Amino acid sequence: MHEGRFIETQVAAIRGEVGDGLAINALSGGVDSSTVTLLAHRALGRKLKTVFVDNALMREGEPQRVARVFKRLGVPVEVIDARRTFLDALAGITDPERKRQVITDTFYRDVFGKAVRESGARFLLHGTILTDIEETVAGIKRQHNILAQIGIDPERAYGYKVVEPLRTLRKDGVRKVARRLGLPAEIVGRIPFPGPALATRIVGEVTPPRLATVRAATAVVEKELERSRAFQYLAVLLNDCATGIREGRREFGQIVVVRCIDSRDARRASVRALPWKTLARISRRITAIPGVNRCLYDLTPKPPATIEYV
Amino acid sequence: MHEGRFIETQVAAIRGEVGDGLAINALSGGVDSSTVTLLAHRALGRKLKTVFVDNALMREGEPQRVARVFKRLGVPVEVIDARRTFLDALAGITDPERKRQVITDTFYRDVFGKAVRESGARFLLHGTILTDIEETVAGIKRQHNILAQIGIDPERAYGYKVVEPLRTLRKDGVRKVARRLGLPAEIVGRIPFPGPALATRIVGEVTPPRLATVRAATAVVEKELERSRAFQYLAVLLNDCATGIREGRREFGQIVVVRCIDSRDARRASVRALPWKTLARISRRITAIPGVNRCLYDLTPKPPATIEYV
Repeated sequence: MHEGRFIETQVAAIRGEVGDGLAINALSGGVDSSTVTLLAHRALGRKLKTVFVDNALMREGEPQRVARVFKRLGVPVEVIDARRTFLDALAGITDPERKRQVITDTFYRDVFGKAVRESGARFLLHGTILTDIEETVAGIKRQHNILAQIGIDPERAYGYKVVEPLRTLRKDGVRKVARRLGLPAEIVGRIPFPGPALATRIVGEVTPPRLATVRAATAVVEKELERSRAFQYLAVLLNDCATGIREGRREFGQIVVVRCIDSRDARRASVRALPWKTLARISRRITAIPGVNRCLYDLTPKPPATIEYV
Repeated sequence: MHEGRFIETQVAAIRGEVGDGLAINALSGGVDSSTVTLLAHRALGRKLKTVFVDNALMREGEPQRVARVFKRLGVPVEVIDARRTFLDALAGITDPERKRQVITDTFYRDVFGKAVRESGARFLLHGTILTDIEETVAGIKRQHNILAQIGIDPERAYGYKVVEPLRTLRKDGVRKVARRLGLPAEIVGRIPFPGPALATRIVGEVTPPRLATVRAATAVVEKELERSRAFQYLAVLLNDCATGIREGRREFGQIVVVRCIDSRDARRASVRALPWKTLARISRRITAIPGVNRCLYDLTPKPPATIEYV
């Protein structure tokens, strides 16, 4: 693939499709949605509205980082503060399937759907890639009908159009285009991060204090392992507690699991044999987080385990 | 210490104390209670009644193993099948402190207490060692008043006597005496195992299926690590579940934690850096246990974690 040619072709195609209309897209800060944002910005300029939804489930400093990157690139991004909406929707939910469903529904139906309707845009740009389409066909991924998800029923959907400029690329192709478009390394090389974000890193209820704990643990793991070049590394907060001793007293503390895997495409994964010195340092830093007194390392490949816990 | 002399002295002392009376003791299969059983058997012969309580919380084959060892040594042991009593008492209990308390109460008050009263014995032999006394004085261990625990109130306790022949020894001294008494290596060299047994290796409710799971995991870990010469190694069943894939299907499975530590005296412990090949083999075997799809390795020293989870 010639990235320069791909960019030219897609910019022209987006312009051709949208014409004089208004388009909207949701930027998550991942490489796919960031690339779509830049392509569409080149094609449409001020006729593109890009929204970034702060769902309260992001990593430390993530909303600020994304806003800063796009400001520097001259792309206007509207930040929607939906933290309260997500936290309220998640309160009391412990079942993992329901948790994911609630996040999807809150995002598409309540937050992004509202932004689409209010914008008057008829064109939705979306970062679907070839692997998404293949996995949907193979029955691994659930079918996403984005228009239905944002609450536009098929009867009224006439006139709306979903535009997917990355649908012929795989992840490595997207990264090349992203680099060519001038996206910084922190976005181009970002390790995979699931849409429901830190909520998939919490077993049990998602609450602000538990988010703070897993966010702190995630920051430790990402800092300590950024040079590992592993496919993915993450921290998970369990719901169980275990006994420990702090300052001579028996306490009942929280448990954090560290996972670091190698993989080509996330379909299968093997466990990285990290140096014991690194593991000891991670354990020390994680058990320094208030309320945490255990740090475990996940020894399970995929399959039989998945990469995430929820 | 000269073990031969120690044994002679203690045998004479027990004989002197008990005289023509009847004595009773509870054998758990650990090195302390096994040593007391043999010393008292030498001193008292048929005037000693030794009971072994099957509490349903033992490791795979443990009751059979202990019975076989003592049969071979010519020491009569009465096995009390109290599995139902313990399982009923533990049903529905998830709080770790209450779980330990219920096991202690069921053992001393309900099961052993009853055996003591029915035996008519006035002498209770007990495997207290010097470290137990020191830790009680230091406030680390709870004070155990064995007579009160078996339900003999202090008013009526007159006439009962607790005999503790190992109270001047530490663990290594007990092991030497045990070896000299002819106890086999599987008992002399046994890794520490807590009184509440597998119940301390289950986070959440103790039920027969969950006991079966942690028992199978314990057998894997003990087999794979017996040559490690580590101070202690164990498997813990968590209450949390995590997502996995089995035969192409998404499943929600159980999580087992493996712990392997080095320690001098269990007061402090460091994590053993096991070979990754060993860890991978353990993980493979543990995730082959029905219902288990994750295997984690505990990276936490003591402190801040304890050795056990409950």
